[in-house]
Amino acid sequence: MSLTIAAIREKDEGERRVALVPVVAERIKRLGASVALEAGAGLTSYFPDATYKDTSIVEDEKSLVASADIVLAVNPPSPDLVQVMKPGAILISFIYGRTHPDLVKALRDKKISCFAMEQIPRISRAQAMDALSSQATLAGYYAVLLGTVHMPKILPMMTTAVGSLRAAQVLIMGLGVAGLQALATAHRLGAVTEGYDVRPETKDEAHSLGAKFVDTGVDATGQGGYARELTDAEKAKVKSVLSDHIARADLIVTTAAVPGRRAPRLIDADQIAKMKPGSVIVDMGAEGGGNCEGTKAGETLQVGPALIIGPTNLPSYLSEQASELYSKNILNLLEQIIKDGKLTLDLTDEVIAKTLVTHDGKITNDGVRAVVEGT
Amino acid sequence: MSLTIAAIREKDEGERRVALVPVVAERIKRLGASVALEAGAGLTSYFPDATYKDTSIVEDEKSLVASADIVLAVNPPSPDLVQVMKPGAILISFIYGRTHPDLVKALRDKKISCFAMEQIPRISRAQAMDALSSQATLAGYYAVLLGTVHMPKILPMMTTAVGSLRAAQVLIMGLGVAGLQALATAHRLGAVTEGYDVRPETKDEAHSLGAKFVDTGVDATGQGGYARELTDAEKAKVKSVLSDHIARADLIVTTAAVPGRRAPRLIDADQIAKMKPGSVIVDMGAEGGGNCEGTKAGETLQVGPALIIGPTNLPSYLSEQASELYSKNILNLLEQIIKDGKLTLDLTDEVIAKTLVTHDGKITNDGVRAVVEGT
Repeated sequence: MSLTIAAIREKDEGERRVALVPVVAERIKRLGASVALEAGAGLTSYFPDATYKDTSIVEDEKSLVASADIVLAVNPPSPDLVQVMKPGAILISFIYGRTHPDLVKALRDKKISCFAMEQIPRISRAQAMDALSSQATLAGYYAVLLGTVHMPKILPMMTTAVGSLRAAQVLIMGLGVAGLQALATAHRLGAVTEGYDVRPETKDEAHSLGAKFVDTGVDATGQGGYARELTDAEKAKVKSVLSDHIARADLIVTTAAVPGRRAPRLIDADQIAKMKPGSVIVDMGAEGGGNCEGTKAGETLQVGPALIIGPTNLPSYLSEQASELYSKNILNLLEQIIKDGKLTLDLTDEVIAKTLVTHDGKITNDGVRAVVEGT
Repeated sequence: MSLTIAAIREKDEGERRVALVPVVAERIKRLGASVALEAGAGLTSYFPDATYKDTSIVEDEKSLVASADIVLAVNPPSPDLVQVMKPGAILISFIYGRTHPDLVKALRDKKISCFAMEQIPRISRAQAMDALSSQATLAGYYAVLLGTVHMPKILPMMTTAVGSLRAAQVLIMGLGVAGLQALATAHRLGAVTEGYDVRPETKDEAHSLGAKFVDTGVDATGQGGYARELTDAEKAKVKSVLSDHIARADLIVTTAAVPGRRAPRLIDADQIAKMKPGSVIVDMGAEGGGNCEGTKAGETLQVGPALIIGPTNLPSYLSEQASELYSKNILNLLEQIIKDGKLTLDLTDEVIAKTLVTHDGKITNDGVRAVVEGT
């Protein structure tokens, strides 16, 4: 009997992605596994059932899941669905265990080996599996475009018969994967771009994308590459420098999101009040409570002179390519655990060990176990 | 008594522009005129009343208009408002007289000298007054961005750790001012761009913007620079060539709008049915009935594989800069008719003669008179 790998249709409202795209389904077959898909799972990412070759299309989610050795999903599935899985089967999905304790308990009790895609370690060998990065890249691109369609002016400098329009000022706060892609996109469109990050080593990356780097004169580098807590005097200095740049910006994209945690506050109400009329903020931290004071997830609000957009699930807007990249991230993980058509979980492998959240009746991630079991 | 020039607040739903921006108000004063503004007229283009220096802010539209020598507006005002104007005063606005006969009659009967901004002749001396061009430039930029936020994929080629994403295919149909700006914007964003127009002389312009030109092998050049009617065989050939390009496109922007007339049909239902799943059409001809079969003005519809967006009043989305350019277009016209602080209408001037729709109790534009008076 060959392994059966099944992808479910996402049930979360507003989710348009799918964990399996046709080109990956074909690659999985070459690993020696059979592939199954819940009917209509690819529709919202523009992959109709007929585009999946040699794939069983199954109407009933429970039958699909009950016969699968490996279940693929984008969002954390419901604990009820875990009850239907084969004991000892594998689940690969975003899990966010700290905020989904009931799901983690169900996975543990059913002895599921669960790979949490947000736990893929950020080491070079695992880059091709790094779903947070692949999704953040697309989100950074989209955030800028979402901002531009809400602005009363254009990004590029433009010379017309009746005079020139100045290029818009775009400020990107937080220069991770999403922030760098946002900088690149705004630069492509002809804006004057500035980047800011607490990590001064991002300066060169900003410059390489044609942006100025906002230097606050405060170095927040702490141990292990994480930012350290600033003193009150340092915080005041950072705020004063940033306020000037915020006040000059036509478009700001804030990208300081830490999955599963509260987003850090980057812009407060005072600073928003001093912005230009018609300015726009796209707050990519909205789902985590917002990088800006006043952001509401899923809403677009006029706050004094600025429009604050708090988008949720940005990658889902680019569902076709977000699904393609996510599915390929999963394929690269599958290639680590399937050899000659058989499952082989090497628990000494760093990527596998760090990504597994539950295995063989235990919660194997320390942070998640601490939250779920209090130990 | 100096001349009084007054701008009204636009009353049309969805209109965010204003005919007078602060920088133009100051320039008008230097012409020796007084300036007045209806309260709140600039708000939706982010020019609060306080940003207009030395400008009378008037709450009541009727008092404002009754005391003005020159009234400025964006959209055709109501015939009722004309009744309040001083006999012999001047109105400068978009008018579209063929579709607003009651307004034209009111202007004629009140002996208003009305300049219709859509009638500015397309000669080089008048370029700085050409409001259709200034607004179309912005609309072309915005149409592409509006398309991108509805696409399930990105425009640029992108290399990621998990593989490359191909650049999107963008087809722009109609290479006037809006179409060329749309081509430039899609090219900036990294798309593979193609342009099409019935006028083969637009080929070089497309090439200069990094686009391929879709050559149908049929030359529609007719007399006086206008396109001639094609034979049935020619039409079939054009359709066959275009169908291939339409089927390959991820984003299409159609720009064939003729103000005040029915938009020509560029894409029919057969062609839409053969497009790729997730493809998007932005139909800039929506207000004139649409360049695509099935377009509905003001709506976004899924039609088979394609999403058809039928935006109305695109320049209004970029209200700040659209107002700035429109207001400067008007300023350039005012400089032709105000000398040493006094009105001087030189009816032998080509620009003035062609732009005037009514003057001294007569309808002075032949096309409009034919429709309104039947003579």
